[in-house]
Amino acid sequence: MSTLTAAVLGASGYAGGELVRLLDEHPAIGVVHLGAHTHAGRRLGDVHPHLGGEGRVLASNAPDEVPDVDVAFLALPHGASAAPGMALAGRGMRVVDLGSDFRLDSPERYEEAYGARHPAPAELGRWAYGIPELFGTEIAGSATVAAPGCYPTSAVLALAPLLAAGLVEPEGIVVDSASGVTGAGRSPRADLAFGAVAEGIRAYGVLTHRHRPEMEAALGAAAGVEPTIVFVPHLAPMQRGILSTCYARLSGGAGGSDLVEALAKAYDAKPFVRVIDQPPQTRWTVGSNSCLLAAWADARTGTAVVLSAIDNLLKGAAGQALQCANLMLGLDEATGLPVAGWMP
Amino acid sequence: MSTLTAAVLGASGYAGGELVRLLDEHPAIGVVHLGAHTHAGRRLGDVHPHLGGEGRVLASNAPDEVPDVDVAFLALPHGASAAPGMALAGRGMRVVDLGSDFRLDSPERYEEAYGARHPAPAELGRWAYGIPELFGTEIAGSATVAAPGCYPTSAVLALAPLLAAGLVEPEGIVVDSASGVTGAGRSPRADLAFGAVAEGIRAYGVLTHRHRPEMEAALGAAAGVEPTIVFVPHLAPMQRGILSTCYARLSGGAGGSDLVEALAKAYDAKPFVRVIDQPPQTRWTVGSNSCLLAAWADARTGTAVVLSAIDNLLKGAAGQALQCANLMLGLDEATGLPVAGWMP
Amino acid sequence: MSTLTAAVLGASGYAGGELVRLLDEHPAIGVVHLGAHTHAGRRLGDVHPHLGGEGRVLASNAPDEVPDVDVAFLALPHGASAAPGMALAGRGMRVVDLGSDFRLDSPERYEEAYGARHPAPAELGRWAYGIPELFGTEIAGSATVAAPGCYPTSAVLALAPLLAAGLVEPEGIVVDSASGVTGAGRSPRADLAFGAVAEGIRAYGVLTHRHRPEMEAALGAAAGVEPTIVFVPHLAPMQRGILSTCYARLSGGAGGSDLVEALAKAYDAKPFVRVIDQPPQTRWTVGSNSCLLAAWADARTGTAVVLSAIDNLLKGAAGQALQCANLMLGLDEATGLPVAGWMP
Amino acid sequence: MSTLTAAVLGASGYAGGELVRLLDEHPAIGVVHLGAHTHAGRRLGDVHPHLGGEGRVLASNAPDEVPDVDVAFLALPHGASAAPGMALAGRGMRVVDLGSDFRLDSPERYEEAYGARHPAPAELGRWAYGIPELFGTEIAGSATVAAPGCYPTSAVLALAPLLAAGLVEPEGIVVDSASGVTGAGRSPRADLAFGAVAEGIRAYGVLTHRHRPEMEAALGAAAGVEPTIVFVPHLAPMQRGILSTCYARLSGGAGGSDLVEALAKAYDAKPFVRVIDQPPQTRWTVGSNSCLLAAWADARTGTAVVLSAIDNLLKGAAGQALQCANLMLGLDEATGLPVAGWMP
Repeated sequence: MSTLTAAVLGASGYAGGELVRLLDEHPAIGVVHLGAHTHAGRRLGDVHPHLGGEGRVLASNAPDEVPDVDVAFLALPHGASAAPGMALAGRGMRVVDLGSDFRLDSPERYEEAYGARHPAPAELGRWAYGIPELFGTEIAGSATVAAPGCYPTSAVLALAPLLAAGLVEPEGIVVDSASGVTGAGRSPRADLAFGAVAEGIRAYGVLTHRHRPEMEAALGAAAGVEPTIVFVPHLAPMQRGILSTCYARLSGGAGGSDLVEALAKAYDAKPFVRVIDQPPQTRWTVGSNSCLLAAWADARTGTAVVLSAIDNLLKGAAGQALQCANLMLGLDEATGLPVAGWMP
Repeated sequence: MSTLTAAVLGASGYAGGELVRLLDEHPAIGVVHLGAHTHAGRRLGDVHPHLGGEGRVLASNAPDEVPDVDVAFLALPHGASAAPGMALAGRGMRVVDLGSDFRLDSPERYEEAYGARHPAPAELGRWAYGIPELFGTEIAGSATVAAPGCYPTSAVLALAPLLAAGLVEPEGIVVDSASGVTGAGRSPRADLAFGAVAEGIRAYGVLTHRHRPEMEAALGAAAGVEPTIVFVPHLAPMQRGILSTCYARLSGGAGGSDLVEALAKAYDAKPFVRVIDQPPQTRWTVGSNSCLLAAWADARTGTAVVLSAIDNLLKGAAGQALQCANLMLGLDEATGLPVAGWMP
Repeated sequence: MSTLTAAVLGASGYAGGELVRLLDEHPAIGVVHLGAHTHAGRRLGDVHPHLGGEGRVLASNAPDEVPDVDVAFLALPHGASAAPGMALAGRGMRVVDLGSDFRLDSPERYEEAYGARHPAPAELGRWAYGIPELFGTEIAGSATVAAPGCYPTSAVLALAPLLAAGLVEPEGIVVDSASGVTGAGRSPRADLAFGAVAEGIRAYGVLTHRHRPEMEAALGAAAGVEPTIVFVPHLAPMQRGILSTCYARLSGGAGGSDLVEALAKAYDAKPFVRVIDQPPQTRWTVGSNSCLLAAWADARTGTAVVLSAIDNLLKGAAGQALQCANLMLGLDEATGLPVAGWMP
Repeated sequence: MSTLTAAVLGASGYAGGELVRLLDEHPAIGVVHLGAHTHAGRRLGDVHPHLGGEGRVLASNAPDEVPDVDVAFLALPHGASAAPGMALAGRGMRVVDLGSDFRLDSPERYEEAYGARHPAPAELGRWAYGIPELFGTEIAGSATVAAPGCYPTSAVLALAPLLAAGLVEPEGIVVDSASGVTGAGRSPRADLAFGAVAEGIRAYGVLTHRHRPEMEAALGAAAGVEPTIVFVPHLAPMQRGILSTCYARLSGGAGGSDLVEALAKAYDAKPFVRVIDQPPQTRWTVGSNSCLLAAWADARTGTAVVLSAIDNLLKGAAGQALQCANLMLGLDEATGLPVAGWMP
């Protein structure tokens, strides 16, 4: 029986739908409020036909209408989390924001990333950054958590232990990522039509994507060294999954086994991060909360190559948000979260 | 804690892998033996990298090496189930065969479908046919169950209630189905390469597919009337899912609401079959053990159209096999089986 | 050197873009006017980046702005062709309408299909129906041609010779079709997003699709017998291609070879229709103006099964429109049209 | 009328099939010999059903059975070109080898790339390297041309002008590429099944792919400076297309416009290479012989980012081989080669 309660705002989107799916199977947390904006008033089954036919109806995203719950998840568009997040936190609830409003550590970084002033700059830095493998203590001790972006999750897990161990140089790290289309959300866009995506791959947001400052901030906090990153995201013709291929200059003659050992040691006791000895496929992580890592050193050019695969909607969004909530609620972090994916 | 034990033979294939994935999450049954043929001796994680990294090793498919378990699942190629199925059943174990060896009710039907004599004709008709919504009592009372083929599952669930209620004529029913590629198994084939499947759809086995006699036998047993079926399966460029579009002549002026009501009534108390009022998408069932049905009547031509969507690997294979096993073991049939799918 | 001139209205859509691509390679016809609506004023290369980078700009769709050309192609949304089509025809130009406004033969049929009155009912029946293999003489002798819908092209080519030869009964023919997404046009729609289409198949417009009356009208005109059709279209996760699986009751003991011979005889001298002895794949037609047919007879149930594969954007739209224009201009019908497709 | 003759060895593969398709439309060259190995004796239409139904039969790949032609194309597996290539060249024919046997410039480089001795080391360096935009004079003056690998084509076109102009440093250039599955050939492989590729992206051959030495050799020859490259290829779930994302350190304060201008100047008069101001999509090149380039400079980290998109089977294989043959035969290099692709 579920004894803890949750609200999901933005339940009509991809990440919101995944939260509902996960929470419906969670042994300790039950959803008691589903919020939506455009779709408020519609049946859950009309918006997410895969979730089953029962009679739940989407209510409002307005914080006033959210009942007191043990944890509220915000799966809202960029810029839409700040107000409800602070309102719900102000009522004493635990809040996990899947959006980007509270991820960065300073007003300056926020402006660099988003080209606008933060509506509540004093709030920045007060929300724990929600990668449990790196910031688990902060998350467990915080009532407000900003769940990371999908790309930063993949890259930060790959690079933080190497930077912390001094095995790679912090300057000019290349993060080359490919994502499935669900990373761009569920609103219709001409460039995300099946007839515009299938059978092709493209880069986008070259050098300007807002996840680059987030990666730098998170790696700085996790590794104690401020890196500079060149980030090029790509859209691949698939629904889910992110593969980040990271290139960094090796420090002090580090070899491939040094890289692998540093990663293995960092994540030894972590249920969802696994270091493997072959290139990880996003397929192997889709449907799971897992992150698969592999690393190589190229002595010839002095370059470390680290590959990181996740499901952008689970470890990159809803799964990791729930992992954080588990910690905030005093549960085992893996509760209700699958390690196994869906496809061989 | 799992207190019941299971063996999975053919664990390296798609259906076998799904059984392992489901059983690893099952609250009452634990896998204690994983059998394979070509892959015997390899680590499970090498064959199914998505299932996680632990150290389980694939053992043999040979029945002699299977320990005494509460239920053995056979996910073996056509023709390979008969011998181990009888051997394990002879040792007193419950056996669920996902293969085709014990599905048909008579040696004649077997020869019609497979063009060869059955190796143990006396066995035919002794195994319960594993569609729990239609043959639940037989399944619960049987130690040996033949889990149905994927296409028959979709078509029989769609048509049995209509035939039983006399709403459609049994002669010349058209079953036009489209399946994802996992229905063809995991062995490499030139015609199943990504470069041979993507961006195309094709029919195959036109009028000769061996699932046609199975559909006729199962509908005959379920509805008490022997239909004749024209069956054309298609391969669609997707991994999972079957959509069957069934066309039958309306009897006695039946209308669309008669069809819908007969289906709704038949599956009212069934957790996995849902009658909806729009065309079901396979996407909504993939990842679940659900079957979605919808029906229309065309008064103009006197034709019933019934659509049926399932996940071929779950309700069409591993999920339904586990549903049967639950019944055989005295558990709730839905134990450990998802109703919700993966994709909106 | 191109000596004949063409205009393409609706050049920004999928069919319009294909017309531009084909005409750019055509040895006798050159495009001199590209019309668009929303995209008027934009560079062709911005709207169709695959067509090359040269400096052509999209002009208006307004008929007043179309110069005198030898043939005008209208690739406009439903309902938008009637006015410009009549205006351009009134100026003495040859017009090929790829839209649906002039396809049907009577106001009654139009209202049945579209649920509204035709804006110029007297015009219905005056435009030749543009399947050159069946109506070549009318097309060659007409200044106005209505190019058929994609589904009707596939089904009418499959069924007309069999109906004309009396090999199948006209009542209750089932046409079960699967199309790629480009058949639904290029405007953004939530249900056509990659994340809503990939890995799934669905029916839509069950019994109500407007191409059913068109099929009946065209088969009536081609075969001299008025059939009734049950039509269920499906959306498959691919960009291009239509496969129609047609089921009809056999007449007078016709066998499979009778069907094949009737088809082969009908299309013996036709460059784009080929009868083959295996199930045709849409892949083999994509990129070509070809239609591949195959037929079987099921003596057991008295059913003919005919499979028909085309590229919905070529034989089902732009290619066939150009084939018609070739005839109207006195050229060989195959000029500038590929028989070979893109994918093995 | 075709007055020049060609042979295609390895006509049953993807690149061989594309050569046949292109040559069938070529105004000056006609195919007179189709060679195959396993498929010798089969009809072309059985192996490439998309190429039409006529009665051509695949003959042998054995050089003795190849008639005297103006140009022979070898589309054979790695290692299979050397003997027939030298035999046919020895008979005085022009030969374009699409394989890898003659691409490298020295026995040492060959051993580095392929881990084996070259069977005819004296031949290395005698075959022109077939990128017409960079080595057009050599190609036009040579009777033997080694058509480049698909990945090297994309990367060398992107980087050569920048290295030649001194705008980027030659050391430690990162080439991160994603390819469709046809790059891996047409033989069945478990890891290339639709059910193993769809919905996923993966790296492979990390740091060890044999195209890395080829890139270094070609760039050295084209730019007069020997670079070192870190190369990580990826497999994307699509049939055709390569996108290479190249990262190099900027030299001497070069900015984005410097990069763009150097590329534009290098390819100003080249019909198939186009520099655009947005990230190129592989979709826009598929079906064409075009290469689309775009470049950015990141002053913050001192990094150049160059994107390069091609169709791996055309500009990366059959198209470029034909472009070379055109030059060798004294034709315009663009003869019979499309600039426009298939998909918007």
